[in-house]
Amino acid sequence: MDKNSLGHHISQQFNAELEDIRSKVLAMGGLVEQQIQDALNALVTANVELAENVVKNDVKVNALEVNIDEECARILARRQPAASDLRLIVAVIKTITDLERIGDEAEKVARMAAELANLERPRNQYHETQHLGESVQHMVHDALDAFARMDVEAALKVALYDEEVDLKYEGILRQLITHMMEDPRSIKRVMDVIWSIRALERIGDHAKNICEYIIYLVKGKDVRHLGFDVIEKELRP
Amino acid sequence: MDKNSLGHHISQQFNAELEDIRSKVLAMGGLVEQQIQDALNALVTANVELAENVVKNDVKVNALEVNIDEECARILARRQPAASDLRLIVAVIKTITDLERIGDEAEKVARMAAELANLERPRNQYHETQHLGESVQHMVHDALDAFARMDVEAALKVALYDEEVDLKYEGILRQLITHMMEDPRSIKRVMDVIWSIRALERIGDHAKNICEYIIYLVKGKDVRHLGFDVIEKELRP
Repeated sequence: MDKNSLGHHISQQFNAELEDIRSKVLAMGGLVEQQIQDALNALVTANVELAENVVKNDVKVNALEVNIDEECARILARRQPAASDLRLIVAVIKTITDLERIGDEAEKVARMAAELANLERPRNQYHETQHLGESVQHMVHDALDAFARMDVEAALKVALYDEEVDLKYEGILRQLITHMMEDPRSIKRVMDVIWSIRALERIGDHAKNICEYIIYLVKGKDVRHLGFDVIEKELRP
Repeated sequence: MDKNSLGHHISQQFNAELEDIRSKVLAMGGLVEQQIQDALNALVTANVELAENVVKNDVKVNALEVNIDEECARILARRQPAASDLRLIVAVIKTITDLERIGDEAEKVARMAAELANLERPRNQYHETQHLGESVQHMVHDALDAFARMDVEAALKVALYDEEVDLKYEGILRQLITHMMEDPRSIKRVMDVIWSIRALERIGDHAKNICEYIIYLVKGKDVRHLGFDVIEKELRP
């Protein structure tokens, strides 16, 4: 084997390793999406069994994080990647931290769902929570899609959408606080709903973080902490 | 210059770069500690000006995160570190994410402090919040100390202490909910207090995360998501 084909061989193997990491991130993302959906279903349909399943499955999310993290460290040590390959690894290390935290928030929703299932269930109480939950679930899905296709425009769209989610969250929160004031006996139950919508709102934040890493990864530009008007101007000249 | 002394020269420069990153992380940690303390003081003494200062200073925390992140990426690309040097860089990348989020939580406390300053101030209302805040402030301080000295025992102690903080938080939360039930007119104000103690509890979680990275860094063992009885057994055979 001459030197050139050896080099070619190594870089092919390296590409396969990077591809493997990318698909593992997407698999972790898929699991996390499922966790959000199950937690939300458990909440809306008062399904304790499903809620307990979500709590149990969180260890799978955690295991994937540790596994991908180790693979990244191995690649950094053995392949010593540069430029965009290096940015990919750094972006993956950060992305999986956010995916793991999204899993934690889904677990919180599931715990609240299990508690709420045994309490009084006022009609339509969880209608708006479900709506908020579906919004953040879409954000996570679209963020992972943008990651898969390295699509900066799509990432930017998801990140911008987080503001709408925040407004929705604040609207529901105001309603819930009013509800507590009108019916103080409901306070304990409503607090559980508040923790649920708070967890959902946090999921939106994490999806936004992932989108910022994608922009960094593709553009080599760190856009965290910039206003989105600035980011839009920089990315869409 | 012969090859050996060139190698020596490069490794000295490399050591200086690593030292520089470590001291920047500690500087960022110091700033974050100050933010927690100021936010807490603003809350307890109803000092709106101090609260606004904390909110303003959060950009400094963010700037430090971006700056250290870039330096880590530069070192990874140029020095291609291995083994414990590589683990240091990975641990730093993760640590500064948590420090930045601690800064965000301190900012949240400051925002609540500014709102609460203009509301009715029942006596002793913030006594226990202050106590909780001091606990997590100590956690952050000790975590940074453990980072500076690469002290696994100290890191483990901080991580274990997080359980006590969680219990404290839950105790205060129960009291506040009871308070809302007894005096529904207080609900809006008490909700602001609840967001404050929630933010403080999250700071404890982030300090614990940092301690887990220190253990990973020194021992090369990923201890996240393990029970602490397992961790203690592994680290203190």
